[in-house]
Amino acid sequence: MSKRKPIEYAKTSPAVRAVFDDIKTRRKVKDVNNFWKYLAHDPATLKRTWESVKEVMADGALSPLVKEMIYVAVSVTNRCRYCIASHTTSARKAGMTEEMFGELMAVVGMANETNRLANGYRVPIDAAFD
Amino acid sequence: MSKRKPIEYAKTSPAVRAVFDDIKTRRKVKDVNNFWKYLAHDPATLKRTWESVKEVMADGALSPLVKEMIYVAVSVTNRCRYCIASHTTSARKAGMTEEMFGELMAVVGMANETNRLANGYRVPIDAAFD
Amino acid sequence: MSKRKPIEYAKTSPAVRAVFDDIKTRRKVKDVNNFWKYLAHDPATLKRTWESVKEVMADGALSPLVKEMIYVAVSVTNRCRYCIASHTTSARKAGMTEEMFGELMAVVGMANETNRLANGYRVPIDAAFD
Amino acid sequence: MSKRKPIEYAKTSPAVRAVFDDIKTRRKVKDVNNFWKYLAHDPATLKRTWESVKEVMADGALSPLVKEMIYVAVSVTNRCRYCIASHTTSARKAGMTEEMFGELMAVVGMANETNRLANGYRVPIDAAFD
Amino acid sequence: MSKRKPIEYAKTSPAVRAVFDDIKTRRKVKDVNNFWKYLAHDPATLKRTWESVKEVMADGALSPLVKEMIYVAVSVTNRCRYCIASHTTSARKAGMTEEMFGELMAVVGMANETNRLANGYRVPIDAAFD
Amino acid sequence: MSKRKPIEYAKTSPAVRAVFDDIKTRRKVKDVNNFWKYLAHDPATLKRTWESVKEVMADGALSPLVKEMIYVAVSVTNRCRYCIASHTTSARKAGMTEEMFGELMAVVGMANETNRLANGYRVPIDAAFD
Repeated sequence: MSKRKPIEYAKTSPAVRAVFDDIKTRRKVKDVNNFWKYLAHDPATLKRTWESVKEVMADGALSPLVKEMIYVAVSVTNRCRYCIASHTTSARKAGMTEEMFGELMAVVGMANETNRLANGYRVPIDAAFD
Repeated sequence: MSKRKPIEYAKTSPAVRAVFDDIKTRRKVKDVNNFWKYLAHDPATLKRTWESVKEVMADGALSPLVKEMIYVAVSVTNRCRYCIASHTTSARKAGMTEEMFGELMAVVGMANETNRLANGYRVPIDAAFD
Repeated sequence: MSKRKPIEYAKTSPAVRAVFDDIKTRRKVKDVNNFWKYLAHDPATLKRTWESVKEVMADGALSPLVKEMIYVAVSVTNRCRYCIASHTTSARKAGMTEEMFGELMAVVGMANETNRLANGYRVPIDAAFD
Repeated sequence: MSKRKPIEYAKTSPAVRAVFDDIKTRRKVKDVNNFWKYLAHDPATLKRTWESVKEVMADGALSPLVKEMIYVAVSVTNRCRYCIASHTTSARKAGMTEEMFGELMAVVGMANETNRLANGYRVPIDAAFD
Repeated sequence: MSKRKPIEYAKTSPAVRAVFDDIKTRRKVKDVNNFWKYLAHDPATLKRTWESVKEVMADGALSPLVKEMIYVAVSVTNRCRYCIASHTTSARKAGMTEEMFGELMAVVGMANETNRLANGYRVPIDAAFD
Repeated sequence: MSKRKPIEYAKTSPAVRAVFDDIKTRRKVKDVNNFWKYLAHDPATLKRTWESVKEVMADGALSPLVKEMIYVAVSVTNRCRYCIASHTTSARKAGMTEEMFGELMAVVGMANETNRLANGYRVPIDAAFD
């Protein structure tokens, strides 16, 4: 048995509940998504991850939309099914259109292809890029 | 001996030269970078890759800046040294500031981390994301 | 049709049965798990893999518990669902507590993150590490 | 030009210096290693990463030695040259012998191999592991 | 909601239908497989990808059988479940026997293992290979 | 100091020397390449890996040429620089022409691209492939 169960709000310890409450307030959602309910098995990682996500994904030099699309690009490259599903949803909420999604996938596909062409041909870095 | 040499402009066949000329004209550069000089060993792949890159990286629903940053995100995740160097340079030319680069790296790092947390905790996809 | 079926004990050839018997004896289990029932389609790979696993996972300078946790760390990084499930189970049998699992995941997540920060910032190796 | 330069202690801002000082004190080193000198280009990521590393790598249910070996396992799987070099060094300082290193590599190699066998044979997860 | 639906033939635009018709004719199939029905959400990527696949997978210096097995090798390494299933099927149609599949998996597993041993031991490239 | 030194033939223990001798005889080379000189730090892994490589890479249902190209495909996907260099050399010795190499790279690039398109579009496996 390697599968855990999600920890639901009603059964959280005070430390976990404080994080869940902050997620719900910030994101204006009624319940937190499964990712947090599973991380709740380790309250220290739950708290550290949420604090980091809040800081990293905040509006800044890059918009939340661009950040969510970068998240999708990484998750697709790594094939994390959960993260592809959740961050595609977040990117849409942040304004990603179907056309943007198509272009995002096209760039991700092309980068994964040319990464391997550069590896296989053992291309040395140009002085201009170094 | 597994290392190839770059094919310099003066030694290109007409088919390769036509691609090199198009790259130079479109990008307003005096010479093509090493990636193309190595792909020139296979003129069909050179031409197909260049035509695809032109189409995929063109201004569209996503700007060239956003596309270059997505390229960097994938290349950093895959650790393609050549592509990290060349596309970081391209992203800067397209307007990426140091602050944007910092945020880009922060998102890429975070996504690579949470991808593994989702894998390891075997988090099921929420109905709302499916 | 690309899916194979598992080869059950009753239908094994003598060569496969000898490996299955050794697995059952060593691990004190009534039946081998699916991984071996599928590898049984290629008896040479079945035997070579089992002999290697026996040697590599044996108690040595590192304990079976530490080895199983390293197995989980790699499988989570590569997102091999089967191996995450099976080796998390093995790690627990070898003594991994929930607290240890939480710390294991935290380290795996952090390493995947800083691997990419090091890639993206193109950090050169310090003389002291070389 | 995509390469940054390391930010040396003498040229740090107060925010960066505070982190560098904490690293130097905690680790009893005269200077921080390159990873931190490059992250210093983004003080927020520098601080967040250091605080996370401190928390995650602290002695706990798993010892610093085991944690460093897990770090190496992930870095080798991802081929992060910097992290392989730095965390192999840290693991040795924490007590890793050459024999332990050999067993660590053997497990990492084996896990990367069987991960792909499980993928390719499309092995379904046993009920006992689920 | 991040899941798209496949675009069925009867509902395709003329641009998509032209690609679908070419796939059906070339491959002598009654319907295109899901990969194309999903790419149809982005007609430009659908067309570019199909034209590239046609060119790359054509009989040449390497046979279609060898090319399909290389496709499987990459997909297994990356753990792309869809591509493992579809290209294992294609490889079989092109003549891959069960024995060949077994050897293919054995090489893929071994390469993934020794790739990590080379990384972890930080083996420098021999002059003879450079 | 994390770098090891290669163990040269003259300094090998009898157990290591027996493996080195077998490699030299089988491959008709005057000296073993660096990979084996580094694995020699762990004689058990050296011997196990060499025995496995001998078995897996032997002529069988797939030719040594095809096996070496599959090795290159995996190594390029994982970006293992050492393995790309050494197995490209081996593939050439086994008969790989420049044209074959070009097609190999084209397939590897394309597979890495479509793997991500399948991931990102979350394409379900067709019944016909399952």
